[in-house]
Amino acid sequence: MRAAVYYGKNKVAIEDVPEPSPGPGEVKVKVSRNGICGTDLHEYYDGPIFIPPTEPHPLTHKCLPLTLGHEFSGVITEVGAGVTDVREGDRVTVEPIYRCGKCRPCRTGHYNLCNVIGFHGLMADGGMAEYTVVPRNQIHQLPDSISLEMGALVEPLSVAYHAAVMGEVDDQSRALIYGAGPIGIGLWFALRGMGLTEIDVVEPSEIRRKSIEALGARTLDPTSVDIPGLIDERTKGDGVDAAFDAAGVTPAVESALACLGERRPLVSVAIYDKPLPTPLIQLVLRERRIQGTICYTKDDYKAVIGLMAKGHYDTTGWVEDVSLSRVVEDGFEQLKAGQKMKLLVDPSS
Amino acid sequence: MRAAVYYGKNKVAIEDVPEPSPGPGEVKVKVSRNGICGTDLHEYYDGPIFIPPTEPHPLTHKCLPLTLGHEFSGVITEVGAGVTDVREGDRVTVEPIYRCGKCRPCRTGHYNLCNVIGFHGLMADGGMAEYTVVPRNQIHQLPDSISLEMGALVEPLSVAYHAAVMGEVDDQSRALIYGAGPIGIGLWFALRGMGLTEIDVVEPSEIRRKSIEALGARTLDPTSVDIPGLIDERTKGDGVDAAFDAAGVTPAVESALACLGERRPLVSVAIYDKPLPTPLIQLVLRERRIQGTICYTKDDYKAVIGLMAKGHYDTTGWVEDVSLSRVVEDGFEQLKAGQKMKLLVDPSS
Repeated sequence: MRAAVYYGKNKVAIEDVPEPSPGPGEVKVKVSRNGICGTDLHEYYDGPIFIPPTEPHPLTHKCLPLTLGHEFSGVITEVGAGVTDVREGDRVTVEPIYRCGKCRPCRTGHYNLCNVIGFHGLMADGGMAEYTVVPRNQIHQLPDSISLEMGALVEPLSVAYHAAVMGEVDDQSRALIYGAGPIGIGLWFALRGMGLTEIDVVEPSEIRRKSIEALGARTLDPTSVDIPGLIDERTKGDGVDAAFDAAGVTPAVESALACLGERRPLVSVAIYDKPLPTPLIQLVLRERRIQGTICYTKDDYKAVIGLMAKGHYDTTGWVEDVSLSRVVEDGFEQLKAGQKMKLLVDPSS
Repeated sequence: MRAAVYYGKNKVAIEDVPEPSPGPGEVKVKVSRNGICGTDLHEYYDGPIFIPPTEPHPLTHKCLPLTLGHEFSGVITEVGAGVTDVREGDRVTVEPIYRCGKCRPCRTGHYNLCNVIGFHGLMADGGMAEYTVVPRNQIHQLPDSISLEMGALVEPLSVAYHAAVMGEVDDQSRALIYGAGPIGIGLWFALRGMGLTEIDVVEPSEIRRKSIEALGARTLDPTSVDIPGLIDERTKGDGVDAAFDAAGVTPAVESALACLGERRPLVSVAIYDKPLPTPLIQLVLRERRIQGTICYTKDDYKAVIGLMAKGHYDTTGWVEDVSLSRVVEDGFEQLKAGQKMKLLVDPSS
């Protein structure tokens, strides 16, 4: 079968590799779509970062070379010994976390913070291939009302949903989202799904603003609007109830902190590649906080799948397919150049 | 009577001023001791910062010139009309916050974040004087077991207690305190008062380390110990349950974040005069948070007074008196030069 195999920085090859077979407790999935994540770009252009170069990962016992892909959906074609609750033909999405089950984060339900966490598609052969084999506990079934294209988005949308939960909001809350990339879009859908109506998305790029506006979002251009001034006026000095940084840049952090109400969170869901100058005094004076968030747990998957089943999410204008054979040229390079927002690899082409 | 009157940057005069009389709902206090706060130094060397220069404060209707002093204790000498629950001769400490009572923070019990907050000694004539007049609701009575010298420390120790509460710790928690100045010392006492036994105070100054060690604290010198490495080893990778920044410098924030367990807070109780380069990725990867904290409410005062009544706090080695007449030379200048830790102004000398 064909797969996108990662050998190291700037080296991903579309190769014929042996088709995997499910061991005990495992499930073989024919991949329908596999989203390209920012993490994949980091691995391709600057890696290996998370992918183990020489030492096998303690949970998966794998290292380079590895097939990429951790955001995917597909159809079960075979189940391993002992798997009785899912079967051939089931339409599924995959929650690609391997965890030890023993460390404190695992014991307290926060396995997204497992001390030795692994990811399918980074520490084991992933979904940028015709087939992949995953442990049963990574499988979430998709109801018929959810397309497989949509199902491939459950992973990144669960990252955003988990971040939205960290905002500790309710349907009366006002929120600000910084950045209208895929995570910003996911945050907007998640917060809407929680009943919020007062949400503004702050995004300097006109293309990205238009894109999220087409989904129904309200946007602000920080290059032409004094956001803290506007929020202060609109909220009569109370500030917003939560802000979300899905941009990862200093102006976003500064603006978000200035807009927040007292004792409210700025939720950080960005990968900061260096320390940012942060006005910590803004935390002190109003007892605000900056709350980090990463990944998801099964509850987030269930919530996103539940919203999807109700038709809550819309991929119009920001999600496109790309063929496996051209994943570097039409995938990584287009995303890096900012020409595309979200691309799903189709292993059948 | 004599008072330390603030006229602006580098100008504080010890002057004869009229003795104040309590209006309705007010209480006149003969000041015993008034601590000099870092805020007073900021006002003296860089101000006016909080002190209203020309516009009267909306709650106190006062502006420059003003008598300094917001950390004080004393004895009631007169009560105004309508004050029936405290009386002449009562030994008291003062919680110097004026609040509007109407804004959202006030309505939700967080009057330390009142939108128009004022402080006695910054927005009204304060405690660096023989007498001062405060609203009844700023008065906390002191039991006989608490000396008036100790009573003057309730204010800064309540700042620290409030910060300790923000750490969300229990008696099994491990904590790190960065900075062994008065707030760091107050944090150590507060956390000990909550039952914690596993506390390390990180402080580069040998003098400050010796000072807090003499009170019984365990210290670490960050210039000679790899603190994150040590904590990782000691806690078998779990990290500490709370860290407190009472230093306000980049190395403290960096070290504290690296030492924290997953989903745990770094509590910021420092006045940061500029944005610090902050490794926000440390928040994201372990879902940690930075939580700002400021001042206190009456619950913190009650907790500190309760601990004091049990003999919990010790002023040995870090608290000294200074005469009102020499508050600039022996007070501000000594503190600025780092020659003293905490000084209490004695208005009788």
